[in-house]
Amino acid sequence: MTTSLLEQLIDALRVLPGVGQKSAQRMAYHLLERQREGGKRLSGALAEAMERIGHCERCRDFSETDVCPTCASSARDAHLLCVVESPADRLAIEQATGFRGLYYVLQGRLSPLDGIGPRELGLDRLAQRLEEGEVQELIVATNPTVEGEATAHYLAQLARARSVHPSRLAHGVPLGGELEYVDRGTLSHAFGSRSEIP
Amino acid sequence: MTTSLLEQLIDALRVLPGVGQKSAQRMAYHLLERQREGGKRLSGALAEAMERIGHCERCRDFSETDVCPTCASSARDAHLLCVVESPADRLAIEQATGFRGLYYVLQGRLSPLDGIGPRELGLDRLAQRLEEGEVQELIVATNPTVEGEATAHYLAQLARARSVHPSRLAHGVPLGGELEYVDRGTLSHAFGSRSEIP
Repeated sequence: MTTSLLEQLIDALRVLPGVGQKSAQRMAYHLLERQREGGKRLSGALAEAMERIGHCERCRDFSETDVCPTCASSARDAHLLCVVESPADRLAIEQATGFRGLYYVLQGRLSPLDGIGPRELGLDRLAQRLEEGEVQELIVATNPTVEGEATAHYLAQLARARSVHPSRLAHGVPLGGELEYVDRGTLSHAFGSRSEIP
Repeated sequence: MTTSLLEQLIDALRVLPGVGQKSAQRMAYHLLERQREGGKRLSGALAEAMERIGHCERCRDFSETDVCPTCASSARDAHLLCVVESPADRLAIEQATGFRGLYYVLQGRLSPLDGIGPRELGLDRLAQRLEEGEVQELIVATNPTVEGEATAHYLAQLARARSVHPSRLAHGVPLGGELEYVDRGTLSHAFGSRSEIP
């Protein structure tokens, strides 16, 4: 017998990832009790974002303009192209590194079983772009999963066939980690790829 | 250099309880990638709820009408009045128990240090209601915290002074719990209040 607007709100909040019935209730009550203005602002931001954010036609990242600010910027180095699986990966690299080149966002990874092939990831357009000759290095930053590695392999071949130098992120022991808790595969790889202390 | 609508959305999502920068990013990307329709529905539900949900003038619970459906219902037993601290507590009792009486939602608890006294909790209106004579039992279901107990004590006096019978929820070992993990205070209370096995 709760009010139906409240029920609708709780139900609608469950669209958020990791939010079940209990969390949705807590969120709804929190907004109603303490954050009405914040709730209205969120409503507006959601409506605008869902309606107006599309994909950049150069890099496939989310963008509210046809070409995203990064691709449109003349300050970025067009010789370097970093390929990532998702916009979140792009953001992580942009925030953590001083990378000044351009990005290409696959919005997925090769996964034949799910019907995701090169066409779905826009690899035809990526190939075209590599053929234009401006890109000199293709930095492959797919996730270190089985599908991500397969995608990386495919991308490396794509690049080599067009005389573009492919590279990938270094694998090894994470900074700040304890060796004891590093998984075997990573430790074995890091041991094998050890470098001389200068 | 992310798009500004996206940044606005991520920032707006942080108004939700327990949602920080990382979760907000994940939520925004999730909605954009997979749940645009759900995002729009959430936007609409938020706007409507923030604008139109007020408080029931009888029980102070959230309601989109002047008097909430529970208070307006003739099927509820007006002789029983259950006092809770928050709308979430009311919902929990309504869902868990077969209670068919009415509720009174304090929207807080007595807390003199925070400037929350009887007036802020609408206890003057509650006293008036008890004086009308319809309520026979006041079920005090405040939280078993120090402030909740103080509030319960105050409510019990309020009821007794108006010849209304006050009662409170049973304290004891939670169902399904293991004695080993029950806190000392609860266990001691449950031991002292043991009942004969019929």
